[in-house]
Amino acid sequence: MYRSHNCGELRESHINKEVTLAGWVQKTRDKGFVVWVDLRDRYGITQLIFDEERTSQELLEQGRNLGREFVIQVKGTVIERASKNDKIPTGNIEVLVKELSILNSSKTPPFTIEDQTDGGEDLRMKYRYLDIRRNPVKESLIFRSKVSMEVRNYLSKEGFIEVETPYLIKSTPEGARDFVVPSRMNQGQFYALPQSPQTFKQLLMVGGMDKYFQIVKCFRDEDLRADRQPEFTQIDCEMAFVEQEDILNAFEGLTKHLLKEIKGVETSKFPRMTFDEAMAKYGNDKPDIRFGMEFGELNAVAQHKDFNVFNSAELVVGIAVPGGASYTRKEIDGLVDWVRRPQVGAKGMVYVKCNEDGSFKSSVDKFYDQEDLANWAKATDAKAGDLICVLSGDANSTRAQLSALRMELAERLGLRKNNEFAPLWVIDFPLLELDEETGRYHAMHHPFTSPKPGQMELLETDPGSVKANAYDLVLNGNEIGGGSIRIHDKEIQSTMFRHLGFSTDEAKAQFGFLMDAFQYGAPPHGGIAFGLDRLVAILGGQETIRDFIAFPKNNSGRDVMIDAPAVIDQSQLDELNLIINDCQN
Amino acid sequence: MYRSHNCGELRESHINKEVTLAGWVQKTRDKGFVVWVDLRDRYGITQLIFDEERTSQELLEQGRNLGREFVIQVKGTVIERASKNDKIPTGNIEVLVKELSILNSSKTPPFTIEDQTDGGEDLRMKYRYLDIRRNPVKESLIFRSKVSMEVRNYLSKEGFIEVETPYLIKSTPEGARDFVVPSRMNQGQFYALPQSPQTFKQLLMVGGMDKYFQIVKCFRDEDLRADRQPEFTQIDCEMAFVEQEDILNAFEGLTKHLLKEIKGVETSKFPRMTFDEAMAKYGNDKPDIRFGMEFGELNAVAQHKDFNVFNSAELVVGIAVPGGASYTRKEIDGLVDWVRRPQVGAKGMVYVKCNEDGSFKSSVDKFYDQEDLANWAKATDAKAGDLICVLSGDANSTRAQLSALRMELAERLGLRKNNEFAPLWVIDFPLLELDEETGRYHAMHHPFTSPKPGQMELLETDPGSVKANAYDLVLNGNEIGGGSIRIHDKEIQSTMFRHLGFSTDEAKAQFGFLMDAFQYGAPPHGGIAFGLDRLVAILGGQETIRDFIAFPKNNSGRDVMIDAPAVIDQSQLDELNLIINDCQN
Repeated sequence: MYRSHNCGELRESHINKEVTLAGWVQKTRDKGFVVWVDLRDRYGITQLIFDEERTSQELLEQGRNLGREFVIQVKGTVIERASKNDKIPTGNIEVLVKELSILNSSKTPPFTIEDQTDGGEDLRMKYRYLDIRRNPVKESLIFRSKVSMEVRNYLSKEGFIEVETPYLIKSTPEGARDFVVPSRMNQGQFYALPQSPQTFKQLLMVGGMDKYFQIVKCFRDEDLRADRQPEFTQIDCEMAFVEQEDILNAFEGLTKHLLKEIKGVETSKFPRMTFDEAMAKYGNDKPDIRFGMEFGELNAVAQHKDFNVFNSAELVVGIAVPGGASYTRKEIDGLVDWVRRPQVGAKGMVYVKCNEDGSFKSSVDKFYDQEDLANWAKATDAKAGDLICVLSGDANSTRAQLSALRMELAERLGLRKNNEFAPLWVIDFPLLELDEETGRYHAMHHPFTSPKPGQMELLETDPGSVKANAYDLVLNGNEIGGGSIRIHDKEIQSTMFRHLGFSTDEAKAQFGFLMDAFQYGAPPHGGIAFGLDRLVAILGGQETIRDFIAFPKNNSGRDVMIDAPAVIDQSQLDELNLIINDCQN
Repeated sequence: MYRSHNCGELRESHINKEVTLAGWVQKTRDKGFVVWVDLRDRYGITQLIFDEERTSQELLEQGRNLGREFVIQVKGTVIERASKNDKIPTGNIEVLVKELSILNSSKTPPFTIEDQTDGGEDLRMKYRYLDIRRNPVKESLIFRSKVSMEVRNYLSKEGFIEVETPYLIKSTPEGARDFVVPSRMNQGQFYALPQSPQTFKQLLMVGGMDKYFQIVKCFRDEDLRADRQPEFTQIDCEMAFVEQEDILNAFEGLTKHLLKEIKGVETSKFPRMTFDEAMAKYGNDKPDIRFGMEFGELNAVAQHKDFNVFNSAELVVGIAVPGGASYTRKEIDGLVDWVRRPQVGAKGMVYVKCNEDGSFKSSVDKFYDQEDLANWAKATDAKAGDLICVLSGDANSTRAQLSALRMELAERLGLRKNNEFAPLWVIDFPLLELDEETGRYHAMHHPFTSPKPGQMELLETDPGSVKANAYDLVLNGNEIGGGSIRIHDKEIQSTMFRHLGFSTDEAKAQFGFLMDAFQYGAPPHGGIAFGLDRLVAILGGQETIRDFIAFPKNNSGRDVMIDAPAVIDQSQLDELNLIINDCQN
C-alpha cells in the first residue's frame, strides 16, 4: 500500500504519529526557509511541511520543485499546525516530511484543478480525467453513486428484484430513432440498443417476477438538444397485480426515502393534479409548485369589452408577479420584449400594476376601468404591490408562453430555491396526442399504456379525449419519472396498435412476442421509469446533468476525450458486409 | 391492490382471516364434491378450496373449469387444512373461496410450468417469459439479484464508488472483435460497444476517483461457444495507490463476504499459486483444488529406460486416481479411448495399478520393474488401491490433456462437489503469449498490464519469459476474476505498445487519450474484473450460466423470443448512409 492514511483523515489525535500519504500536489508555497505543499486525494487535502530546521536541504529542495499535479508519496510525522485552517477537516495538523518519492510527474494541466476553474467546457471535456479531479465534478459523481445505492437499498427492501435485460434487442419504428448494431453472424440483420427495457419488463411481469427494477442505460439516436445525451440512465420499475394507486404509493415511498436519506428533507404526502388541471393552472404538464403564481383565466372578465385583441382570443390568462408593481417602465418593456422573443413567441403582453393604495394602473386603461381590473386581480390572486402579466391567443400557445414567463420571473425573483423540494404527481394524461403535421394520433406515453377504464369506446369517436392510466412524477418543474398501467389483454393491445396506425402485420412483426405472451396468463401490471441523470442533478441542486455523468458526450454526440465515434477498419466493414455510401452526400 | 397477501405468506396464525389473493393457477384437483386449486405467485403456492357444502354451485363450477396458468383473484377465508402438506410453508392452511375473478385466461402453455419441465431448450427460450415462471429459473434470477446487491453493499462499505462509464465508445483492434454502432450524426463513423470499461476505469484513477467499481454489461462479437454470450456482465473494479497485495486482499475480502452471506460458507485465507506452479501441478491456469490428484512429473524416473515413447517426450506426467486400481480392463480401455478423443488429443495412456498388496501392475511392465513403478507412485503420491494414469509428449499439450483427464475423473468420482468452495489466487502470469500462427506476441491479459518490477529489460531479450503483475481468482476450476497492476508511465506504455506490434501512429490513434492522461499525474493503480454470470452460476452450484440470465441469446447470437437481430427499414439504412453488400455472399 502506498499510504497509511488518506489525505482527508488526519486529525489532532494523530499528532506524533508516523504516516505515509500519497496524492497529488495541489499547490506549493515557498517562503524560502519553509515550503508548504497541499497534498490532495479523493478524501481531502493535507498540508505537508518542509523546513530548514527540520528537513534536509536536499529534501527541502525537492519539495520546492514539485510541480502542480505531481503524484507523490511522503513519509513523515503528524505535527500541530502553527496557523490552523478551520476551513478543512485536517486544518489543525500538518505532516513534517521525512521522505519524498515522486511517483509520477505532470505536465502543467490545461486548466486549473480548482473548484472554480479557468477551463472552458470544451477543454474540460477533452481532459475529462482532469476535470474529475475537481471537487464539483468528483462530488457529483460520488453523489450519483450514493443516490443509486439508496435506490437499490430501498427497492430491494421493498421486495423488488433487479433483473438485467438485454442490450442487443430489436429495432422498433415506434418512438425515437434507435441506435442499431449490425450483426456479423446474421448478416444483413441488426440488433438495436434499447430505448428502454419496456417490453422486457412487461414480459418479466408475465413471467411472474412480480416486482422488478433495474438501473439501466438506455439509448436514443435523436438530434441532441442541450442537456440531452444519446445514452442515459433510467431507474426502470414494474409491478404486477397493481392499480395506479399502488404504483403511486410505492414510488412516492422511494422518492420520500431519497429526499430524506440524501437531502435530509421530510416530505408529506405528495399532492396530485390532473394533466388538465396542470395545464390550466400552470400551462405546463410539469409545473414547478415551489412557488404560486398560478394562472388566472380572464376570459370572463376581460372579454366583451372594446379590446379586440382579447375579444378575438381563445384564451386570456394572467399571473400575478409578487412585488412587480414597483417595476419601472423600462423593466416592464423588458418583460414585453422577453415574451416576444422567438423562443417564447407571444405577440405582446398586457400588464396591470396593483398599486399599494388599492388602485390599478394598466397598459389597457383605455378599455378597462378600475372595477374590471379589480376582477382581474381577483382572478389572478394579485395583491397590492403585484404586477399582473396577461397574455392572450390560442389556448395551447398562450399557456406555454405564460408558463415560460412564470418560470423566468420566478427565477429572477429567486423563488426556485435549490434546497426546496416540491414533488407532485400529475395524473390522467391523455392517451393519445395529435401530430399536427401528419394528422395522426401517437401514443403520448407509449403504445402499451392502458386507457382509463370505460374509455375504450371513445377511441372510435373522440380519440383525443381518451385519458390514460398514466402519470408523471414532477419535482421542482422537472419530470423525474413517468409511467402507466399497461394493457395486459391481447385484444385491447391489438385495438391500440390499430388506432396507432399499425397494420396487423406490422404489429405482429414488431410486437408479436408480447401479444403472444399476453395469451398465456398476463397479470395486470404497471410501472414507472425515472431519469436518473436528471433526478441526481435536481437532488444535487443543479440545472445541468453533465457534471453528474462521468464521461458525457457533446451536443454532436461525440466523446471528445476518446474521439468517438471514429472510422473503423475496412476489414471490420467487410466482416459485417457493409458499405458506406460515399456518393450520397 | 389486487391482493391482501401474497401466495407464500399465509400461516396458521391467519386462520379465520378474510384475505384476497391473486396469482396463477398451478393445478386443479377435482374430486367432484370438492375442488382444490393451487394458486402460485413469485412467493409461493397457496391451496384454494371450493366445496359443495360451503361454496355456491356456480362458484364451484367456475373453480372446476379454471385452466392451467389462468390469472385469477380470489377472496376468501383462511381455514385449517384437513390434510396438511409439510413440504410448503403454507401447507397448514387453505383458503375457502368466496369470490373469484378471472383476471386473464391462458392458452395451454407449450411446456409444463414445473421444476422439471417437459420443454426442451429451444421451446423454453422462445417462451422465456413462461420459463421464468418455473422455480429453478425464477430462483436463479432472484439469486443473481441478491449476489449483485451483496457485491454493491460490500464494495460501497469499503469506499468504492460506482461510476457509470459510457457504452458508446471507440473501436480498438486489440483483443476480441467489437460490436460497432454506426453514427447518424457523424456519418461514416462508428461507435463500438465496450468489451470492458478498461481504459475508462484507468482514466477514473487518473481522475483521482481512488476506488471505483461498476456492475456493467460488456460486449464481444465472437463466434459463440457453448455458454458464451455476446453480452455479459462484469463486476469491474479499480484502485489507485495500490500494489498487487492490496488488490488481492481487497477482493479476497469481497469473495469471502459473498461466500459467507450467500452460501453461509466461512473461508480461511485463500491459497496462492504462481502460474508456473499451476501449470506444473494441474496443467491448467485455473485449477480446481477442491480435490488433489496433483500432477507428478515422471521424466526423472521414467526416461532413460527402453520405452522410447517416454524417452522422446518432452514431458512424462501422471496422476493418481483414488481407488482406480479396481477398474476393470474395459474401464481402463474406456479411459484410454477418452484421452484419445479429438477434443482431448492424447496419443495414448500408460497406466499403473497400485495393488492393495503393495505390488504394481502396469501397461508397460515390459520396460519398468516394480522399483521403477514404486518411484512413479511416489512422484504422483499414489496410494495402494489407486490407478496412476500417465501421459507424455510435448509439455504444453500433455499438461492440457492430463488436466482434462483429471477433471473428467474427478467428475466421475464425485469430487467436484457443488457445495464445496475452493478459491485460489493464481499469480505471476506471463506478460505476453506467443501466437503460434503469426509468431507475434500478444498481451496475455491486456496491453495495459504492468510487467513485474525489473523485468522490462527482458522484453528485448526474452519476451516470453517476462512475468506480469497479473492475477486470476479461481473458484472450483473456473476463472471468476482476473486483473493486473497497470502501467501508469507513458514511456513504459509506449514501449509495451511497440512490443505488441503497434506503430507509434496506431498507438496514438487508438490510445492517445490514455497516453496523454499518463502525462498529467497518473497514480499507480490496478484492478480486477469478475465475470458476474459465471460467478453467480458457480455460487448457485450450477454448470451453465444460461438460467442466471433473464433473456439469454442462443449460440448463433439470436434472441429467439423477440427474434433479434432482424432486418431494419431501408429508411434506417439510408439515414445511416449504409448499404448492405448483397453481392458479397
